[in-house]
Amino acid sequence: MTRFGRRDESLPDLIAEAGAAALRDAVLERPDALVVAAMNPEEFTGAGNYGSLINTHLGLAQVPAVRVETATSSGVAAVHAGFAGIAAGLYRSVLVVGGEKMSHVPTPRVSEIIGRSIDPHERTYGTTMPALAGLITRAAMHERGLTLREMAQVSVKNHDNAARNPLAHFRERVTLEAVMESRLVADPLRLFHCCPISDGAAALVLTADPAPVRIAGIGQGMDTMAVRYRTELTSFRATQAAARVAYAMAGFGPERIDLAELHDAFSPFELISLEDTGLMPAGKAGRATLDGETALDGRLPVNPSGGLKARGHPLAATGIAQIVELCWQLRGLAEGRQVDARVALAQSIGGLATNNWVTVLESRQ
Amino acid sequence: MTRFGRRDESLPDLIAEAGAAALRDAVLERPDALVVAAMNPEEFTGAGNYGSLINTHLGLAQVPAVRVETATSSGVAAVHAGFAGIAAGLYRSVLVVGGEKMSHVPTPRVSEIIGRSIDPHERTYGTTMPALAGLITRAAMHERGLTLREMAQVSVKNHDNAARNPLAHFRERVTLEAVMESRLVADPLRLFHCCPISDGAAALVLTADPAPVRIAGIGQGMDTMAVRYRTELTSFRATQAAARVAYAMAGFGPERIDLAELHDAFSPFELISLEDTGLMPAGKAGRATLDGETALDGRLPVNPSGGLKARGHPLAATGIAQIVELCWQLRGLAEGRQVDARVALAQSIGGLATNNWVTVLESRQ
Repeated sequence: MTRFGRRDESLPDLIAEAGAAALRDAVLERPDALVVAAMNPEEFTGAGNYGSLINTHLGLAQVPAVRVETATSSGVAAVHAGFAGIAAGLYRSVLVVGGEKMSHVPTPRVSEIIGRSIDPHERTYGTTMPALAGLITRAAMHERGLTLREMAQVSVKNHDNAARNPLAHFRERVTLEAVMESRLVADPLRLFHCCPISDGAAALVLTADPAPVRIAGIGQGMDTMAVRYRTELTSFRATQAAARVAYAMAGFGPERIDLAELHDAFSPFELISLEDTGLMPAGKAGRATLDGETALDGRLPVNPSGGLKARGHPLAATGIAQIVELCWQLRGLAEGRQVDARVALAQSIGGLATNNWVTVLESRQ
Repeated sequence: MTRFGRRDESLPDLIAEAGAAALRDAVLERPDALVVAAMNPEEFTGAGNYGSLINTHLGLAQVPAVRVETATSSGVAAVHAGFAGIAAGLYRSVLVVGGEKMSHVPTPRVSEIIGRSIDPHERTYGTTMPALAGLITRAAMHERGLTLREMAQVSVKNHDNAARNPLAHFRERVTLEAVMESRLVADPLRLFHCCPISDGAAALVLTADPAPVRIAGIGQGMDTMAVRYRTELTSFRATQAAARVAYAMAGFGPERIDLAELHDAFSPFELISLEDTGLMPAGKAGRATLDGETALDGRLPVNPSGGLKARGHPLAATGIAQIVELCWQLRGLAEGRQVDARVALAQSIGGLATNNWVTVLESRQ
């Protein structure tokens, strides 16, 4: 993956940087196919036909390429498409790349573009992603006893981890007080509960040949786009469904997971996701986080990369970047933040938890 | 599929109409997964996250859904994704839907949005799709002896066929003279050589169970996005590559094809595609068309639906609609334009022939 943050390079250049690095790492010159993830390159950058654009840009103009999109989880959707292509016997190797370039666009316009993934009717009332996340967070405080300190600790931990990750958007540590006193964005969410607007790209190579890490399970789960139709606000049915599929494919459950990358676009989402994936019992994730259980040296390190909060969230890059981090961890290549782990889980949220994914990875070394 | 043309319904309504009809036809209540094709719903309609939007709209909010995009061939890319999902054993049934809504958008803006699939550098010179198609057509006249009468006859034939298709955008026949005297769009292409701006949607159900039609082969082929990097202008390497993959999977070649739907976004493209797929020897497609070989009662009927030219071209719907027409033909359901056929071929062009697909279908009845 590239360094995440404000980048001056074009999106094709960022994606090519990540893609070329993945091919070098896999010692592969020409994959059988390419899957490209980009949430909305047309509106962010003015260019489209991204399958063709990227394969030409990578010098792989004759390699079959498609673009896959599931809003903010597009990166994993692309991994799943590549996985299916290999499992179907159509390809022996697939290069999966994803990225987004947004920092050159004024923030209100970024918000409008990302907001296209909200239910159109709810959008007519002026709803934005942070507004919906604030609503969910307030409900979680009321119904599940989530506290402001617990949420803030997620941000503190993820900034701590990002300080050890040279590719992270933010390298500075933050204190609990700084988080809790930062500018209000959407009550009760404050600026330091929210991921930044990042540019960047990530890539990985899937292969039918033996590899140091295998996808033990991968699953997708969905929920209504309209939040008003949901049976529950404070947990995400889409994550729960995705986890069921991924664990069923893996043949084991959360008890074997040593390490996780979770979709903390808003810090409380890390706590909700810990419980939705079964990694923590319901209502326990906040306390466990305050107790350091999810810290780098804890029982179950979560977001060793720094997460969306501090590593950054270039939309379609994120789902791939989570898996890249876990592969580095499982291969012992996460210098400065290395964790001892054999089985790891990535969870990605598309839209306001409409199109979520869980991937379980296992070391083969 | 829905009726193509200027439609007042929203894109989700059009896609749901086609999707629900396909589920009824397949006697299936709930598919295992959904693949949605839409080229650029964000800019054409202001909404995104189309996998989630469409599954909710179809009353299938819990069914896994992704969006797939390869510019104007997105529909077949979605069919291929569904095919891979079933071949991989991940799903037993997949609903593939695709559509576009453009007629409410001013034509120059439609041209700009579609133009995003042209190489960004070539676009800086003001290139549009019709301009590039005009360039290719002029080269084909010079290098391959393509004549204005041959091109015009493609339009005449496809309007004849569409007159028999109640779902077609245009139901009026046109004469050779009318085509050749219509308004110049991009020399030598005239208005009646160019497909219209259409709204519409199409859908089909893929299943692991026995079905009346099987996908015997499906293949993707690519070429550089930049036309200036191509080794040849007057044939499309992307189609040739896609055909090779599809025929290899089928285990037979063009000699067994009884019927075809080809991507005649511009009438000369039908002639180029006839030769690129091996259905006609190089340089012979124009003469064969004038001789009636590709007419509904000819040796090899082409575009019985009316093609993109006259059935219409709602971008991401098109690749699916071609296969829908062929399924109806192979099942004997194409009332008023029924052809006797057991094996049929669909060919779809993404962008300016950057991302093309060939699908071979076989009747099992």
